[in-house]
Amino acid sequence: MAQLRKDPVTSRWVIVNVENPKNPRDFNFKPVAKSSKTCPFCPGNEAMTPPEIVAYGRKSGGKNMPGWQLRIVPNKFPALRIEESTDKFAFGVYDKIGGFGAHEVIVENPDHAKEIPDLEIEQVELILRSYRDRCADLRKDTRFRYILIFKNYGAAAGASLEHPHSQLIALPIVPSRVLGEVKGAAKHFEYTDRCIFCDMLNQERAQKALTIHEETHFIGLSPFAGRFPFETWVLPKAHEASFDSLTDDRLTDLARMLKTILGKIRLVLNDPAYNFMIHTVPLDNKQPECFHWHIEIIPQLTQIAGFELGTGFYLNPTPPEVASKALKNAQFLA
Amino acid sequence: MAQLRKDPVTSRWVIVNVENPKNPRDFNFKPVAKSSKTCPFCPGNEAMTPPEIVAYGRKSGGKNMPGWQLRIVPNKFPALRIEESTDKFAFGVYDKIGGFGAHEVIVENPDHAKEIPDLEIEQVELILRSYRDRCADLRKDTRFRYILIFKNYGAAAGASLEHPHSQLIALPIVPSRVLGEVKGAAKHFEYTDRCIFCDMLNQERAQKALTIHEETHFIGLSPFAGRFPFETWVLPKAHEASFDSLTDDRLTDLARMLKTILGKIRLVLNDPAYNFMIHTVPLDNKQPECFHWHIEIIPQLTQIAGFELGTGFYLNPTPPEVASKALKNAQFLA
Repeated sequence: MAQLRKDPVTSRWVIVNVENPKNPRDFNFKPVAKSSKTCPFCPGNEAMTPPEIVAYGRKSGGKNMPGWQLRIVPNKFPALRIEESTDKFAFGVYDKIGGFGAHEVIVENPDHAKEIPDLEIEQVELILRSYRDRCADLRKDTRFRYILIFKNYGAAAGASLEHPHSQLIALPIVPSRVLGEVKGAAKHFEYTDRCIFCDMLNQERAQKALTIHEETHFIGLSPFAGRFPFETWVLPKAHEASFDSLTDDRLTDLARMLKTILGKIRLVLNDPAYNFMIHTVPLDNKQPECFHWHIEIIPQLTQIAGFELGTGFYLNPTPPEVASKALKNAQFLA
Repeated sequence: MAQLRKDPVTSRWVIVNVENPKNPRDFNFKPVAKSSKTCPFCPGNEAMTPPEIVAYGRKSGGKNMPGWQLRIVPNKFPALRIEESTDKFAFGVYDKIGGFGAHEVIVENPDHAKEIPDLEIEQVELILRSYRDRCADLRKDTRFRYILIFKNYGAAAGASLEHPHSQLIALPIVPSRVLGEVKGAAKHFEYTDRCIFCDMLNQERAQKALTIHEETHFIGLSPFAGRFPFETWVLPKAHEASFDSLTDDRLTDLARMLKTILGKIRLVLNDPAYNFMIHTVPLDNKQPECFHWHIEIIPQLTQIAGFELGTGFYLNPTPPEVASKALKNAQFLA
């Protein structure tokens, strides 16, 4: 038996296979290979990247020299550039904007082979703090309307370099999927005077059906209408619209949560490729009461095929309640 | 220099790399392997599928026996089933519907190794006619609100069986991506009293910048804001909302168009995996003046990564005008 489920934020429907759930052992993939050689992100190779924007924890050396704990550089092959214009053009029925934006790479730590589950909590905190700092800096440029922080891990998830890194893209428009979430949440707020994400968290607090892991201020869960098998979300328990309002006293808590969730995914799914994305309220949004920032983590276990491409209607072979149980039971301690 | 482009139908934005366009030779992939062995879709193995819904061109043998030219069977592992309920439930903040629907497989021809570019035009016509007939039959069941016909070719595009086949899924809801197109087109119509697709075709008629191939009644082109490299659309030149209004006298024309486009893609991109999807007006739509049916063909050349997943904002490394030129120049004749 299958079930159709509607995501309460975006009204996106998902088919969930609840009869023959696909389990971790049903997925085949190659573990991610490791090798450093001439890696542009390894200490000593700083000249291989554009000059750094900022480095953290430098104990020795100068700018663009080894000795850093975390390093942020412009993407060498940027999707968008800060030097481009934001001019808007019509071309008959078509619209165009110049390629203005920012595209940065966060080199998460000096060690080529240490991913988030392998790092000390202090280093994961540093990664999160650097994300927050970059958002705070970039939002000063009022031409930006959205900042996306994301990570591609493994070739199947679109990573072209192995060294642990995440990316930031600042955009002059609010992308359609974010708009869809924001509009869906605003609609719910208009009707109920409540945040839809807070409603989901309250329901989960009573039911405990989807929870994977809890820390004091954060929860990790399998979303009820997740599009992908083992899709996992991390949310602040208390209402908060914007990722960059994250206060210092909650950094350790979030670091422990992220390390735990990624460690459990690695353990249960045998080191799969994955993506994570931080969804935060758009920079010019005037309704912070409607939106609730969160991290979406998507292991790459299935192909997106004609049905998904044609409809935006995803086929999820693993019910979220099955995924959350498997991840909850995995013995990984941060 | 990059460019941001807005799809005039869905308002979806795309970044297009116009400075260093990725060309066909820049993509690496394995050609699709061929082998028959114990294929459930080969003649003689009819017992390996559920009993057939319909067969075309049978010259010998009875039902579920060899001798057919095209065969349609229920999917053995259906995403949705006709026996399920359409009951709607609320579960706190969540919505559910029973797994009602239909999921069929169109075995396109008896030969395991002959794909659309290899077939006689009459056989491609038969495929298209069978699509149309199934839509006409299924729309009698008023519980259906949308019928999607699609094809996954090659493992990277999600195909699990090699024998040439396409699929049909009939749904009790209108999926979000289709709704997005329909709503975007309706908005344009409200403002201009014109079909946005017709507007695009009129502009292309004057500019000839994106055209790949023309037949009397159909055009094949690279969409201005295509999400994927070498994404190709086939559209009827005259306004028509629904795929199943396709008349017999235009079947040959569409067959020649589809064979030509898929042949050119195979030639230029070295037999890549691809998906195609027929986008048609929802069954209960009351505004056929706004929508214009079309086929979207998407070669699988890039990974969908965190940026696309996080934003619904795609990064297209090949400008559509570069793709259309390469495909236009490819010498494949139907």
